[in-house]
This record gives sequence, C-alpha cells and structure tokens, in this order.
Amino acid sequence: MKAAVFGTGRVGQTIAARLAELGHTVTIGTRDPETTLSRTAADAMGTPPLAAWAADNPGIEVARFADAAAGAELIVNATNGSASLDALAQAGAENLDGKVLLDIANPLDFSNGMPPTLLVKDTDSLGEQIQRAFPTARVVKALNTLTAELQAYPARLPESGTVFVSGNDPAAKTTVTEILKDFGHQDVIDLGDITTARGTEMLMPVWLRLYSALGTPAFNFKIVR
Amino acid sequence: MKAAVFGTGRVGQTIAARLAELGHTVTIGTRDPETTLSRTAADAMGTPPLAAWAADNPGIEVARFADAAAGAELIVNATNGSASLDALAQAGAENLDGKVLLDIANPLDFSNGMPPTLLVKDTDSLGEQIQRAFPTARVVKALNTLTAELQAYPARLPESGTVFVSGNDPAAKTTVTEILKDFGHQDVIDLGDITTARGTEMLMPVWLRLYSALGTPAFNFKIVR
Repeated sequence: MKAAVFGTGRVGQTIAARLAELGHTVTIGTRDPETTLSRTAADAMGTPPLAAWAADNPGIEVARFADAAAGAELIVNATNGSASLDALAQAGAENLDGKVLLDIANPLDFSNGMPPTLLVKDTDSLGEQIQRAFPTARVVKALNTLTAELQAYPARLPESGTVFVSGNDPAAKTTVTEILKDFGHQDVIDLGDITTARGTEMLMPVWLRLYSALGTPAFNFKIVR
Repeated sequence: MKAAVFGTGRVGQTIAARLAELGHTVTIGTRDPETTLSRTAADAMGTPPLAAWAADNPGIEVARFADAAAGAELIVNATNGSASLDALAQAGAENLDGKVLLDIANPLDFSNGMPPTLLVKDTDSLGEQIQRAFPTARVVKALNTLTAELQAYPARLPESGTVFVSGNDPAAKTTVTEILKDFGHQDVIDLGDITTARGTEMLMPVWLRLYSALGTPAFNFKIVR
C-alpha cells in the first residue's frame, strides 16, 4: 500500500519505518522538506533530526504534505494535534478525498505547563474536527493511546494490550485494523463512529499521570473482559 | 472498621454489603431514611428499592448522612456525582474531619442525553472539589473506573485488572489500598495527589463507549507494563 506519514517527530518516524519494514511504500510528509532536512539538532522531545533518520531509512522519501498525499492510499496523521488541521489543509482536500486517514494525534495544549490539558474534549474531538474539515476523507482514530514504540511494536510489552478504532467508514476501519494486526496488535476494539474518539483522546490525562507514576511510557491499556 | 457508605444506589448497596461481608461495621447514609425506605419501586438504573436490600442485609443500618458519618472512621461517597457535594455538606464538615473519605463518584451530566458528559474535567475534578470543600477530610479517589459488581468482586473477571488511588494523604491511600486488596484487587496504582483524579474521572467517556461496544459493563482497565 502507498502511505504518506505526516509528521517528522517520534511518532511519524516510528510509524513510517514500521510501515516500510512491512513492505509498504512510504513517504514522509512535512511542511518544508528542505528546512526540515537541514536541521541538525534533536527536537524538544529528544527525537533525532530527520536528516539522520532519513539517512538510515533510504527507502523512505521526504516530501511536502501535498506531494506525499497525492499518490497515497493511506494518510497517517502523526503531526502535533495543535497543528494537524493546518497540515491536512496544506495537503489539500483533493489529495485526501476517499483516502483512509489514520489519525494518531492528540490535541494536547502545553500552553499552561505540565501536564498538558486538551484543546478539545468531551463534546468534540480532534478526530471529529478532521472528519468535519475533510468530509470525503475516511478518518479512523487509532493508536493515540500508547507511546510511539509500542504503537509500532506492541510485542515489546510482556503481555498483549488493547488498541481502539473509531470512525464512520467500516471499510476504512477494516483497513486500519489489518495494519494494526500486522504491527502485532492482537486485541483491536471497534468503539463505533468517529465521535468515540472523544473517549480515547480523553485517555491522555490518565496516560500522562501513569507515565509519571510508573516512570516509563512503556505501558498500555488492556481491556480485561 | 466503622464505615459509612453514602448513597443508596447500586454502588452504595454493593460496597456496603461487601464491607459488611469483610467484617466491617457499616451504616448506609442517605438524606431521609424514612422516605428512602418507603420506596417500593426499583430506581431508574434498575436497582432494587433500599427496603428490600435492607431486609436482606439486617446487619447494616440506614441513617441520615450526619448520623452515619458521626461514628465512622471511613466515609465512602457513592452518591451521584452531581449530588455529592450537597450530600457531604449535609453530613457536616465536623463529621468528616480527619476521616478517610473514599470518593467513588463520577461527575456525570445526563442533562444533554446519552452518553453523558462530565460536569468537571481536565483542569479540575470532583475529587478535588470535595477535598477543597472539606480540607480536613482525607479524600482518596478510587474505584470510579469500573462497574459496581467488579469494584467489590474483581475476581469475577477472568483476569485481574488495575485500579487506581489518588489523594494527598499517604496514610489514607494506604488504608484504601488495603480495603481494595481485601476486595480482591491485586494491582493498585498510586497515581499521586488528588489532582490525578482528573485522569481517572476522564476515563468515563471511553468506559461508556466500551460498555456500548462490548454490550456489557463487565470489563476493567488493566495497565500492562
């Protein structure tokens, strides 16, 4: 499958490499490839600069959002939640039309310090905002409930956890679920339509507190039943 | 331990009976015992009327909030989240002073239909509101993340899940954790101070969606790590 991964941070790098490893043709989408590739320092989260990562992943192209999206069947939104709508607008609605849009972003607001709060919650979600802004994209919210490494390599935990899909298009959810299973996720719960993304985005506050209490992001929610 | 359980709904009945079964001396607290005991119909959630339950649990007294709280070492808030602050005010701050106050309530707002939203969230929580209103009570938020039966009898799930404690008083959290272990909870995570109740109260939206997707409330979150 041809995939465009939007976002050059830890999540974007990790998901892009994992998709390529599984045989997909992957392009990383970013605002300005020349500028992004000219950076030599790690970002605020300690993620290596994209140029170093791209050198290690020669099969993955880096392109502007619109160019990355144009030929892709699958778009992965791994941008910062506060910048996602703008990034997708730069890609152009015509390049998202009919595409499966896997939205991993969380709408975190760091403007009032740590822990971040949510820019949207409870009566709306980033997943819904994206679906409303791009009504012909087939948005599926998933993977926003665990750390990047475990999104891509869930078997690195000693026990299988649960991941969730939310979206209005059943076929798009099936496509995403197959990718999740290829990643190694054994338990995927379909929560329902895209409004159920409110629930998984609102997992972030307890996720952040668990990160602090456990001293590691290496954990996942499992729904025991 | 002498315990007062506030609330006559499913959670109050279940927790009161479980505490009594474990040897504690339990009083159910309610606004007006005569009126509550005169009801003969099940409530909106299908919970049997208190009189029938009281007849099955002759060792458990029913009393006004203040009378129930006066002699208790442990207060359990199992009232509706929208009525909790009022119920605790009726108990009287002097009757909560120095007591361990286990807060199980969720601040759900049903006024806009289903699924309910949260009356308070993200930058505050019901647990914090209670702690601020009764600064000498030792508030511990716990058990608000699973259905009543599994709060009291977690071993009825095929696999052990996780429960959480949030509170400012370490000794109160230890007391609550011991009760949780007596109930059968094997994995109790101390999330930190009472502000971490924001995280567990914000689990409600995904809990409600999971209830709908799974068709049963018989599930729990487990933190795999």
